[in-house]
Amino acid sequence: MHKGMGFIVLMVLVWGCARQPQELEGGRWVDLSYDFSEATIYWPTSDPFRLDTVFSGTTDQGFYYSAFKFCAAEHGGTHMDAPVHFAQGRRPVNEIPLEQLMGPAVVVDVSEKALKDRDYRVSVPDLQDWEARHGPIPEGAIVLLRTGYGQFWPDREKYMGTAERGAQAVQKLHFPGLSPEAARWLVNNRTIDAIGLDTPSIDYGQSTNFESHQILNGQNIPILENVANLDRLPPTGAWVIALPMKIRGGSGGPVRIVARLPEG
Amino acid sequence: MHKGMGFIVLMVLVWGCARQPQELEGGRWVDLSYDFSEATIYWPTSDPFRLDTVFSGTTDQGFYYSAFKFCAAEHGGTHMDAPVHFAQGRRPVNEIPLEQLMGPAVVVDVSEKALKDRDYRVSVPDLQDWEARHGPIPEGAIVLLRTGYGQFWPDREKYMGTAERGAQAVQKLHFPGLSPEAARWLVNNRTIDAIGLDTPSIDYGQSTNFESHQILNGQNIPILENVANLDRLPPTGAWVIALPMKIRGGSGGPVRIVARLPEG
Repeated sequence: MHKGMGFIVLMVLVWGCARQPQELEGGRWVDLSYDFSEATIYWPTSDPFRLDTVFSGTTDQGFYYSAFKFCAAEHGGTHMDAPVHFAQGRRPVNEIPLEQLMGPAVVVDVSEKALKDRDYRVSVPDLQDWEARHGPIPEGAIVLLRTGYGQFWPDREKYMGTAERGAQAVQKLHFPGLSPEAARWLVNNRTIDAIGLDTPSIDYGQSTNFESHQILNGQNIPILENVANLDRLPPTGAWVIALPMKIRGGSGGPVRIVARLPEG
Repeated sequence: MHKGMGFIVLMVLVWGCARQPQELEGGRWVDLSYDFSEATIYWPTSDPFRLDTVFSGTTDQGFYYSAFKFCAAEHGGTHMDAPVHFAQGRRPVNEIPLEQLMGPAVVVDVSEKALKDRDYRVSVPDLQDWEARHGPIPEGAIVLLRTGYGQFWPDREKYMGTAERGAQAVQKLHFPGLSPEAARWLVNNRTIDAIGLDTPSIDYGQSTNFESHQILNGQNIPILENVANLDRLPPTGAWVIALPMKIRGGSGGPVRIVARLPEG
C-alpha cells in the first residue's frame, strides 16, 4: 500500500469514527405520520377520531392547565396492522419485537402507474424492477410502497375514492394496494421486517377478501397504512423506526413513524 | 506508514463501514413503555383505559379477522406531557420537533433515598452529585429520574400511595417527584430535550400547584411519566427515542419510549 493511500484511509477512518455518535442523534429526520383529529381518515365503517376536553384554562389556583381524552379505532390515520389483525394466533401489537419495528427503508415508487389507475396493484415485476435498479431488498427491510395517493390526504374522495361513510361506502373504495402475488413473492423470497404504503389499506380498495393482509400477517409481518411524506424518502438509504401505541392484545393501533435520511 | 499497518487500518475501516448500518439497526434495544389495558395506571380522577371489540373471529368469507377500538385519557400509562399541558401557548404534542424526541439518556438514580421516603423530591444536589460522577448533563439530553417506584407497577397502592379513584383520592397520592428548585436549576443551567421518571407525575404526589410541570413546560420541555424499565439503563451511554401519538392540539398522549443500550 502506498503511504499517501494509507494516510487517506486513516483520515477516512478517523472521520468515520468521529461520525458514529452522530449516526443516531444527528442527521435529518422526517415524520411519516399524519396527526389525529376529526379530519383524520378512518375506514368508512369506523367512527372518526374524537378528542374531548377535560379541562382547558386557568385553574382556581391561578395556573394554566389543559388536558384532553380521546376515542379512536385502532385502524385509522397512520396506523399499524399487527399480525393478529388478519391471522389468528399471530402477534398482537404489543408483542412485536422492537428490532422488527426498525430497519432500512426500501421505497418502491409506483406513483406514475398508480396515479393513472385508482385500482392499481403493486406487482411482482414492480418489485423485481426495483431490485434490478437498487439491488436485492435487504434482510430486515421496511418496504414502503409509494402510490402517490398521499398527496390527496385528507381529501377522502380523492384519497380513497369516496367521502361517504357507512357500510354501503365500502364498495365505492378505489385506491391502490399490493397484489396478493407480490405479497406472496415477498414472504417467500425475501425477509422483511414490515411493509407500508400511502393508502388506507395494503389490499386495494376493491378487495373483498384482504388476501395480501392474510399473507403478510400470516407470516407475522406488520403492515403500516396511511404512511405520510413518502415523497421525501430516497429509494434506499433512509432508516425507519415505527413505534405503535402499546395496546395489550391490540390488533393494531396508532403508530408514529419517523425516517432518518441518509447524509449528504 | 508500514504496509502491514496500512492493511490493519484498511481492515478496521472495512469493519467500521460494514458496522455503520448496524449502528442504528443493531445493538440492544429496551422498551421503556408499559402496555395499555384496563390495568394500566391512570390519575385517580381519570377513567381507566378501555378497549372494545369491533370484531374478533371468522368472517362470513371464512378468514380470521380481529379489530378493536379504545378510549383513553391523554395523561395515563406511559405518556408524554406536552408543553401546552401546563403552559399556555407552548407546543402541543403534535408540534414537538422530532429532534427533541431523541437524545442521549442521562439516568439519575435516586432510588435508595426515594424508596425510604414516598414524598422524596429529586434535589439540585442530586443532579450535581450525578454530574460530579459522570460529567455535565450534555446538551440535548433526555434526563430520566429513577426513583425505584417502577418496580411496583401496576400495584396502584404501592406505586402511587393509594388504589382509590375519584377526586378525594388525589390528596392520598404519595410518590416521589422532581423538586421545583431542581426543575428551575435544569432549565436555567442546562439545555435538555426532555425529562422523565418512573412515577405518575414529575411533581411529587403531594404537590397541589404542579410547579415543576409549570417550570419545565414553560420552557417547552416535554415530560415523560410512568416510564418503564429504568433499572435496565446505565447512567450514561444509552440513546432514547420517545415517539408520542400525534394528537393534533393534544396536551400529551400515549408515548412509546425505546432506548438503545451502549455496545459492550
